[in-house]
Amino acid sequence: MEFQEALNWRYATKKMNGTVVPQQKVEQIVEAARLAPTSSGLQPFRVIVVTDPELKAKIQPIAFGQTQIADCSHLLIFAAWDTYTEERIRGVFANNNHERGLPDETPSDYEIQLTANYTSKTKEENFHHAAKQAYIGFGMAIAQAALLEVDATPMEGFNPAELDSLLGLSERGLRSVTLLPLGYRDPAGDWLVNLKKVRTPSDKFIIEFK
Amino acid sequence: MEFQEALNWRYATKKMNGTVVPQQKVEQIVEAARLAPTSSGLQPFRVIVVTDPELKAKIQPIAFGQTQIADCSHLLIFAAWDTYTEERIRGVFANNNHERGLPDETPSDYEIQLTANYTSKTKEENFHHAAKQAYIGFGMAIAQAALLEVDATPMEGFNPAELDSLLGLSERGLRSVTLLPLGYRDPAGDWLVNLKKVRTPSDKFIIEFK
Repeated sequence: MEFQEALNWRYATKKMNGTVVPQQKVEQIVEAARLAPTSSGLQPFRVIVVTDPELKAKIQPIAFGQTQIADCSHLLIFAAWDTYTEERIRGVFANNNHERGLPDETPSDYEIQLTANYTSKTKEENFHHAAKQAYIGFGMAIAQAALLEVDATPMEGFNPAELDSLLGLSERGLRSVTLLPLGYRDPAGDWLVNLKKVRTPSDKFIIEFK
Repeated sequence: MEFQEALNWRYATKKMNGTVVPQQKVEQIVEAARLAPTSSGLQPFRVIVVTDPELKAKIQPIAFGQTQIADCSHLLIFAAWDTYTEERIRGVFANNNHERGLPDETPSDYEIQLTANYTSKTKEENFHHAAKQAYIGFGMAIAQAALLEVDATPMEGFNPAELDSLLGLSERGLRSVTLLPLGYRDPAGDWLVNLKKVRTPSDKFIIEFK
């Protein structure tokens, strides 16, 4: 399927039929998020994959009862770093240098400057920035799912603090940002599936300076 | 090109060769952003397309002199709503209802609730939320460019307030969020092109509950 065909095919699935998505497809969807570009390549987010039915049942009320949480095959949770720290940034640069076969005895001027920039900001400012990077990966995962004809429901409607507590995300330095249940649509029970996809018209969406 | 092949092919191009990207490809890239899902379908962002060389020259110092601003074919600017307002939300619902052939005499309970939710928040909270939606579209545009083998440089490194002032974005209720110069790589002048793409290893990036 072509990319734009896939973006038109997809929609925020309201009712899923419980069919399991093959593991290989789930891995491709998460991989798209892992390959997403992020600011300075820091990748300040993680993807949590939930298949445990009991855990999904506990998450459903935290997501205001949305049925896709229970009916989905795999529930992806995008969780961003709660802040940027020197240690976390160092970990990324050490891995980069190792993978690229570059020396890693002393941090580069670039790394020192970057670290100073982040550590001078508030935790909340840093979290907002990290969360924005997670949204790039979120978009990539949504796109990859559609290309594989896997349905997905991008969700912000949940209580992040309760979910973080349930999953112990604070201990990992993470805060949940978005949910993405994966599965297959159940058209008979889905009020949205047959409604026309509407977007802001191009002449209003695009502003040209030429 | 397959999606993951495209995501591996792309990189944050540091030097562009000045070749013009065909208009049809630029339109496809912007269209991917327009088709991106956003919270409640509100699409609280716009894409600005700059080709005017004089304007690009004025933007370059605002983006700390990065040469891609001048050397790119088309400069995309992602700009989010500075806040959510009743009027803006009404505009989206009116368009949706019109396109779907639904009655639009009175706002639905859903629209009323959504409007109340946003208008009870601070302008800054709303802007952060809108900006996050822009990052989904930003991701989609980056992906579409790669699939078309068009190079792009995702950029946060610029002074948003200065850019907003230069382009008169406040008057449009917008604030710039990210830049995406489009063009073609100039490998001879690009220090990044031959460095290995490195990402957080999957076993650290993915957290499973099964």
